[in-house]
Amino acid sequence: MKVPSINSFNDLLSRAATLPEKRVLVVMPANKETFDAIVEARTRLKTRFLLVGGEEAIRHGPGSSAAALDRIEIRDASGQEEALQICVEILRDGKADLFMKGAVDTGTMMRAVFDERSGLRTGKLLSDVFITEATLEGRTRFLMITDGGLTVAPDLGDKIHIINNAVAVAHALGNPLPKVAILSATELVSPVIPSTIDAAILTKMNDRNQIKGCRVDGPLALDNAISLESAREKRIQSDVAGQADILVAPTIEAANILAKSSHYLAGWRLAHVILGGKVPILIPSRADKSDAKLLSIALGMIMSEATGAGNS
Amino acid sequence: MKVPSINSFNDLLSRAATLPEKRVLVVMPANKETFDAIVEARTRLKTRFLLVGGEEAIRHGPGSSAAALDRIEIRDASGQEEALQICVEILRDGKADLFMKGAVDTGTMMRAVFDERSGLRTGKLLSDVFITEATLEGRTRFLMITDGGLTVAPDLGDKIHIINNAVAVAHALGNPLPKVAILSATELVSPVIPSTIDAAILTKMNDRNQIKGCRVDGPLALDNAISLESAREKRIQSDVAGQADILVAPTIEAANILAKSSHYLAGWRLAHVILGGKVPILIPSRADKSDAKLLSIALGMIMSEATGAGNS
Repeated sequence: MKVPSINSFNDLLSRAATLPEKRVLVVMPANKETFDAIVEARTRLKTRFLLVGGEEAIRHGPGSSAAALDRIEIRDASGQEEALQICVEILRDGKADLFMKGAVDTGTMMRAVFDERSGLRTGKLLSDVFITEATLEGRTRFLMITDGGLTVAPDLGDKIHIINNAVAVAHALGNPLPKVAILSATELVSPVIPSTIDAAILTKMNDRNQIKGCRVDGPLALDNAISLESAREKRIQSDVAGQADILVAPTIEAANILAKSSHYLAGWRLAHVILGGKVPILIPSRADKSDAKLLSIALGMIMSEATGAGNS
Repeated sequence: MKVPSINSFNDLLSRAATLPEKRVLVVMPANKETFDAIVEARTRLKTRFLLVGGEEAIRHGPGSSAAALDRIEIRDASGQEEALQICVEILRDGKADLFMKGAVDTGTMMRAVFDERSGLRTGKLLSDVFITEATLEGRTRFLMITDGGLTVAPDLGDKIHIINNAVAVAHALGNPLPKVAILSATELVSPVIPSTIDAAILTKMNDRNQIKGCRVDGPLALDNAISLESAREKRIQSDVAGQADILVAPTIEAANILAKSSHYLAGWRLAHVILGGKVPILIPSRADKSDAKLLSIALGMIMSEATGAGNS
């Protein structure tokens, strides 16, 4: 299927607005940030929310919002554990298209989702795909960064899943052959820097078509990956260097730091979604602005539509 | 000694220009980038260069520059190995204040310097201190990032040296008690994320005065470290969070990626210097602009003056 190319967050919002209604399941929504995101999404996108948590706190708690709760479905739960259990059942029955975190600890929520007994595992690794609207060498375009959210020190096998999850986003945004840079601190393969070894191996696996739907090259330092001028100065022969769409960092810290620097240092807009599960998962951070929350829901809707996951 | 506070790169250049002459030793200078840096430094700062390499290539090679070579001292060497050997002798004799890399592989140069037999080890760990002029929450100020250059996966002991080297730079720039953030992907201590464990330990070592001359706090995610708003939203009680002067990343990749993102994503000016050796070491990258090269030499001069290293 040919997907029309989406090259900006405004395009992404417009595209999400054309999609059929998506059912968004929210666990423990009783805080202001979550209600703000719900109101924003209901105003701009075709979403139907199902809230699971203490009904009293949802309806009358400090963060409560009449606009968010107007004609909305609520499933009462006596605490975090019961709420998560109810959510797992709803997801297992295919009755939600997106799963969003409210006022619950990310680790606790992810353990419920990761649990083998949840029936929500798909055999894939879950990973966070972060997308920013970058302005680089005078051009504005999407740049993805992964995985800053889930796997602390991904091994080679994990990195293949991490690449595949990000490539799925690029495909859904109409980029049929994204350029994937495997980042390290240098563009040279060094026996004493394990991330450069993994990068060389992943590049060869892509050459052999063991990683599909993208062009992989690494190791690359950040500058060689995103600056054509820097790639040229280093005389790197590569069709990825200088123009990467997806940056795969070697560790959770490196990816998280890079993703945050794109927002806090460069001031770029952002969205992020967790893929590899039965449905896209959203874990809005308390520090995320409402723009980032709305864009993340829109991205989640596009990924739900692209993968057909959760449709019943 | 009270050091006047230096808060911008323009101040840093002005301060370096007031310093007594520094002797800069350059190994294998025969490329355009190095000659450009030499010309720039000789124009703006009191420097005396000593070039070691093939004299013919230096005087008549493709990158050669009459302005760089005017009344300059050259020591002929028949190849890279001999050039490095001559440099080690000059450094051991205390006849240079700064050591700068020319057209030689960084690894080869660092192995010569790291070698126990070189006599240049000081018992400290060498680390790269990167400094950028950051604009954060409307305020422009210095932000340091370390170590993106030398130790691939620093252990706890290495991190103490890495902190000390960066703190020495802050002190030399007139900041008597820099705020040091130990970065991870989260501000919570997690048994499954080793970088958060190290961060907690380093914070306690600072509490116990085992790491001096600074305030250390961690783990912090990048946003909590540099954004007061983000630190407040996460309700982090800390006198470092949101206002860190020094960011210590858990790995070489994370530090290198963060340092490069401050320049290539945010567009900030930069300088960097390797400390922990007998004299400050400069390893200008081919991709560094002449501004970065000049600022790095100025920073190296200030560090040479501050530590008194190499003075004979």
